[in-house]
Amino acid sequence: MTRIRNAAFRSKIMSAAEAAALIPPGSTVGMSGFTGSGYPKTVPPALAARIEAEHAKGNPFRLRVWTGASTGPELDGALAKADGIEFRLPYNSDPIARDKINKGQMEYLDMHLSQVAPVAWQGFLGPLDAAVVEVSGVREDGTLIPSSSVGNNKTWLDRAERIILEINRWQNPALEGMHDIYYGTALPPDRVPIPLVRPTDRIGETGFRVDPAKVVAVVETDAPDRNAPFAAPDDGAERIAGHLIEFLQHEVKRGRLPASLLPLQSGVGNVANAVMAGLLDSPFENMTAYTEVLQDGMLALLDSGKLTVASATAFSLSPEAAADLNARMDAFRDKIILRPQEISNHPELIRRLGCIAMNGLIEADIYGAVNSTHIMGSRIQNGIGGSGDFARNAFISVFMTPSTAKGGKISAIVPMASHVDHITQDVQVIVTEQGLADLRGLSPKQRAEVIIPNCAHPDYRDALLDYHKRALMGSYGLQTPHLLTEALSWHQRFIETGSMQP
Amino acid sequence: MTRIRNAAFRSKIMSAAEAAALIPPGSTVGMSGFTGSGYPKTVPPALAARIEAEHAKGNPFRLRVWTGASTGPELDGALAKADGIEFRLPYNSDPIARDKINKGQMEYLDMHLSQVAPVAWQGFLGPLDAAVVEVSGVREDGTLIPSSSVGNNKTWLDRAERIILEINRWQNPALEGMHDIYYGTALPPDRVPIPLVRPTDRIGETGFRVDPAKVVAVVETDAPDRNAPFAAPDDGAERIAGHLIEFLQHEVKRGRLPASLLPLQSGVGNVANAVMAGLLDSPFENMTAYTEVLQDGMLALLDSGKLTVASATAFSLSPEAAADLNARMDAFRDKIILRPQEISNHPELIRRLGCIAMNGLIEADIYGAVNSTHIMGSRIQNGIGGSGDFARNAFISVFMTPSTAKGGKISAIVPMASHVDHITQDVQVIVTEQGLADLRGLSPKQRAEVIIPNCAHPDYRDALLDYHKRALMGSYGLQTPHLLTEALSWHQRFIETGSMQP
Repeated sequence: MTRIRNAAFRSKIMSAAEAAALIPPGSTVGMSGFTGSGYPKTVPPALAARIEAEHAKGNPFRLRVWTGASTGPELDGALAKADGIEFRLPYNSDPIARDKINKGQMEYLDMHLSQVAPVAWQGFLGPLDAAVVEVSGVREDGTLIPSSSVGNNKTWLDRAERIILEINRWQNPALEGMHDIYYGTALPPDRVPIPLVRPTDRIGETGFRVDPAKVVAVVETDAPDRNAPFAAPDDGAERIAGHLIEFLQHEVKRGRLPASLLPLQSGVGNVANAVMAGLLDSPFENMTAYTEVLQDGMLALLDSGKLTVASATAFSLSPEAAADLNARMDAFRDKIILRPQEISNHPELIRRLGCIAMNGLIEADIYGAVNSTHIMGSRIQNGIGGSGDFARNAFISVFMTPSTAKGGKISAIVPMASHVDHITQDVQVIVTEQGLADLRGLSPKQRAEVIIPNCAHPDYRDALLDYHKRALMGSYGLQTPHLLTEALSWHQRFIETGSMQP
Repeated sequence: MTRIRNAAFRSKIMSAAEAAALIPPGSTVGMSGFTGSGYPKTVPPALAARIEAEHAKGNPFRLRVWTGASTGPELDGALAKADGIEFRLPYNSDPIARDKINKGQMEYLDMHLSQVAPVAWQGFLGPLDAAVVEVSGVREDGTLIPSSSVGNNKTWLDRAERIILEINRWQNPALEGMHDIYYGTALPPDRVPIPLVRPTDRIGETGFRVDPAKVVAVVETDAPDRNAPFAAPDDGAERIAGHLIEFLQHEVKRGRLPASLLPLQSGVGNVANAVMAGLLDSPFENMTAYTEVLQDGMLALLDSGKLTVASATAFSLSPEAAADLNARMDAFRDKIILRPQEISNHPELIRRLGCIAMNGLIEADIYGAVNSTHIMGSRIQNGIGGSGDFARNAFISVFMTPSTAKGGKISAIVPMASHVDHITQDVQVIVTEQGLADLRGLSPKQRAEVIIPNCAHPDYRDALLDYHKRALMGSYGLQTPHLLTEALSWHQRFIETGSMQP
């Protein structure tokens, strides 16, 4: 059965190459995609081929690319490889694009994910010349059935001057009805309260509105999302999860958290999946999630019935989990709500719901300032993503990491963070496989006394204690004691020798 | 006429010394006060005298002190001088307390002002043993007429086990009716949208509710707020204001701001007053303010009719402006609304209203990360206050500062911030007397290219350009280029030589 149930849209069907030809050099293009799901999969490679051909002829051809978050190799990888991206926002995890950024060959604006859509409306980013958006179908009435991520698609469709749609038959038709697209946002002074008080609330529509006159191309595809293989949690991740779940149980016992916890937000990756696995074996029942991304672990929690609903903006599943979801979509559909990222990550809603935010980090310093983005203070890894939206507004803000990286050559706990994404005020709990530091209500010096013994790896603990002790004697001021000639010396040592260890 | 119109409260009148005797050693005490207004003025000095007497006898006596924000010498100054404060939150500007903190003799938790009340309810800070709250009167029905600041008083009155009231006859009785105390907050999962959509909206009650059984003492006072003298803006402050107003006019012309702007938030001090004075001479009409503190300049704007309403949580006036306000309170009363600081600073409301946030800074680095709190990375100045609440959620987030301090020995623009309170994502515009840097939509490297030429003082500009140029060649990664051996060397030079200049 056709996915395009409206004749006006069927009349615009063309090849990916034909569609790509409609995007001129220098365009600003809004693309769909969030954590490797729902991104366009055929127009961007065709665009990359066209860019490479123009470059071969000596013609300049670069784009400004906006997305939801990370996409896949067919988009960021192909365009970056073609040197086709001049400027990129708001998040990237593609290795080729990352390399170009860190070589200074591509400008990258790393943004709070909640702020992308409002800022696009605000106007200072300039016009959005084109949108390339994957959807899973077009309804009779011309509304669009969203795909496996929502991201900023509503805003791209509203703002773009011309629109290219990829209709992806690989996406399960049963996605229809799972989305909740809120059309109540506005620019100030016309903003009103967002009427969502529970993760289960539906406040919008199941499809995107689109002006058919702006749709210049419809491309049919049948390509899978970039579903990364699932890595079973290792021992370290399981220990991190264990410490965190013990803490949550303690908070429930003390009456500071409801027995069913509060809506969970979980970052992506191995540690996050371990926490989900740990929750599966925990005594908590009737949990909810209000988060960005649905990973394998959260799907298993939904399946068990311990998690009653998950609200997010995208899936990020292994091929096995995606196949399972596709096979049993009817069982999951009422338990999953996919929303625009300005709603999934909205500070108003995160604070109202009182989310328990659980995010990863690159490094934390002994006072608990967190670096989520920059290796050795200058090299971008991925981006801040939604961690700032959640950490500052959460009921409890947790950051988790193994205590070392690169086989022990990098300590995740350092004297001073080489870059700060989360200030001490927004970092309440730090967990490593070594233990958990509950920093709530503590001054900086008191935080150091908890972080170093509880979270640092034994290989680095004495050196951190020594730094803190000497800083307490030699620092300019004693609110946040530091020795500025040493504060970043661990990072410098790594740059020079390949290890933070002396 | 008595300010205490309820007999049950009159029966509890006693001296400040008698009231202070009701607070045992080791207590956690919530005090009123925000930016030098509305703080208790007689019980804290009596408490300090009692603490000194106990110390003289060799008995330990220290307190944990919570407030709204800064208070006055009778509170923070007297208690710190007596070594009576073990732990202090969420903000301090008292020089004696600051000195104790920076010598490591007093623990200080520097908090987002919006989060103090919710966190007090959350429970991990422990019980609130006592509250000492200044009010301007008690009504017949036992509700309390707030004073010249609201701060966290609603929460202290609700949470404290016993309450001491200071009834201050110095406060104008015409304050009655000016306040809007919202009683709709809750802990999750019971939070609901806050029904405020315009700065003018009244969503609460004009007084505080209090359980009379918890009131253990009522102390009558007649003492003025710590009203600091008004310093006329100097040439540098006027130039900063000029650059900012030109920018705002440009934004209106481009259609990116309404002609009456959006609700203004303004920090405290000389530069803030200069901006208000500049707005008085600007073409903007029908402006509104949604801010923390009402300074002299904002009162003049209200008086002119160009500002139609100002919502805040406290006054911070010069003695002259306070006298003028007192003399003409009826003319101002309908234009001023004082709210609890959890409402004046609430992220939900700041983002909904789309505030134009204007805050000061200590230093910004060449990529626009801002340090608002720590001198040379370790010595606390005041605290983050509400700047994080406003900057992250504002429609436009502006930071303003003279380009140098200490007679040119400190540059406000540095290679790397020695402490970060506002990450680059939350810093959109930086203004010094040299010029304005509009950083919106720019990558870190692009930000440096705007900040250094536009904002740095000429004495430091070449050295910053040189650092940036060499970092572009020698940095580990080029997203945010840094040379870690030099990044904090300007601060170290100041510590060693008293000047950042080589």
